[in-house]
Amino acid sequence: MAVILKGKEVAQAKKPGIMERVRTLKTMDICPALNIVMVGDREDAHAYTKGASKALSACGIGCHAANFPEDIKQDKLLKRISAMNNDPLVHGILVMRPIPRSIEWNAVERVISPDKDVDCITTHNLSRIFKGEQGGFNPCTAQAVIEVLAHYGVSVEGKKVAVIGRSLVVGKPVAMLLLQKNATVTICHSKTTRLDRITSAADIIVAAAGMPGLIGAEHVKKGSIVLDVGINMVGGKLVGDVDYDRAAQYAAMITPVPGGIGSVTTSVLMENILTAAERLAGKPG
Amino acid sequence: MAVILKGKEVAQAKKPGIMERVRTLKTMDICPALNIVMVGDREDAHAYTKGASKALSACGIGCHAANFPEDIKQDKLLKRISAMNNDPLVHGILVMRPIPRSIEWNAVERVISPDKDVDCITTHNLSRIFKGEQGGFNPCTAQAVIEVLAHYGVSVEGKKVAVIGRSLVVGKPVAMLLLQKNATVTICHSKTTRLDRITSAADIIVAAAGMPGLIGAEHVKKGSIVLDVGINMVGGKLVGDVDYDRAAQYAAMITPVPGGIGSVTTSVLMENILTAAERLAGKPG
Repeated sequence: MAVILKGKEVAQAKKPGIMERVRTLKTMDICPALNIVMVGDREDAHAYTKGASKALSACGIGCHAANFPEDIKQDKLLKRISAMNNDPLVHGILVMRPIPRSIEWNAVERVISPDKDVDCITTHNLSRIFKGEQGGFNPCTAQAVIEVLAHYGVSVEGKKVAVIGRSLVVGKPVAMLLLQKNATVTICHSKTTRLDRITSAADIIVAAAGMPGLIGAEHVKKGSIVLDVGINMVGGKLVGDVDYDRAAQYAAMITPVPGGIGSVTTSVLMENILTAAERLAGKPG
Repeated sequence: MAVILKGKEVAQAKKPGIMERVRTLKTMDICPALNIVMVGDREDAHAYTKGASKALSACGIGCHAANFPEDIKQDKLLKRISAMNNDPLVHGILVMRPIPRSIEWNAVERVISPDKDVDCITTHNLSRIFKGEQGGFNPCTAQAVIEVLAHYGVSVEGKKVAVIGRSLVVGKPVAMLLLQKNATVTICHSKTTRLDRITSAADIIVAAAGMPGLIGAEHVKKGSIVLDVGINMVGGKLVGDVDYDRAAQYAAMITPVPGGIGSVTTSVLMENILTAAERLAGKPG
């Protein structure tokens, strides 16, 4: 039977380190805090904010929701984000997506300070990932994949990894992070033919396509590691991209949904906020 | 026998379009020109400059060599490059690598205007490639691979491509350009185990490792397309990464070295200079 890679265990293991860093910052009179920017009134965005706020509070990190009306003018929104860049009480800025069509995403991306870009949406931080440079912020979900592998002692060097999905939020950055760790990475997507042949030759599968049930038994090599990044609502139930019960029959290790990668994302977000706060305080990150 | 993909044919086909664009610019009193920045006195850099200058001149494009002494101070070099950014007679800036250790590459990269960055070394243009955005400049050699495939009518959509090499000059950008065209791309490198298994499953191989003889008969699937980006001097002779005679027995199409990808690189450089000149003149690129 496959070993279940539990995101909660990874998050739990990270907690003491996070609390320690928060304590150290507080001795310097710094209360690390995130601003979540939300444009329009979206139920899923509220749910995310509520969850994040709860998790961050539990670790002593502030979480402020900046909700703007759907019809806010772009220049006004940019000015408000710009003010957050200059606010010493804000250490991280996260913009909920999607944003209304009246606002250009590129303009939002350009206005955020790379120093507070804790979800890695700026050109500055994305290009660092492409170049393989350290010292920026990695996208939380992509980094969560790396953290789960590290926690369970999985080395990716020389391993064949199939990443399914090529978004800038997960697929492309996770491919670059794994490549940086000397994995041989194949990037698959909706136009990939015979996906099963590629994934069943892989030692590690990272499913980030947003398609429930995409990865079944025939996609998984015996003894492989399956990481499910998918978050899909099917019949009111949260499911990943992997048909868990079938894939688990062949995989040596597998992440469940919920309780897998998603459970580690918030820990990575907190670590990014702390890194931002430490750097802004002039402490080496 | 394999079809030989001749770079010179591709370059020849591009020439009339290049000449036409030069003519149009000249009617606007614009003489498109490149500045090649060279620090220190290196034989290979002189050879490159001489070759590029000759090719550019033949198409009516200016090519100026800006040679600086090995011991130039970084701030002085940056000031000189900065002056080129503001010089309306310069449309493209190319910095020969390697540069002396006393100069930080990142500082050079940061000072060049993205609008004149015809070899795609700036964060701005590299991040565009990572994001899959149009409108920047692509690295000349990576784009030359795309041009050769296009010239010979090869569609990469749905094809399996093995890219060998992960440099920012060729490997990573060519992987992103091919991914953008819906290829399924595997990025291989020095830590890849059983490279032969990966390449022999690929429909297209792009060899950009800088290792002579890396790709032999056992690496090539019957009917595949082999693109050799390697430029290596062995015993005074220019060779690629592919053992041409052996690989050609199995490949359906193959590029030679010399006379393959390298012959197209200068054409792409010229097109980038013209695009820069057109944009700087306010003409849509």
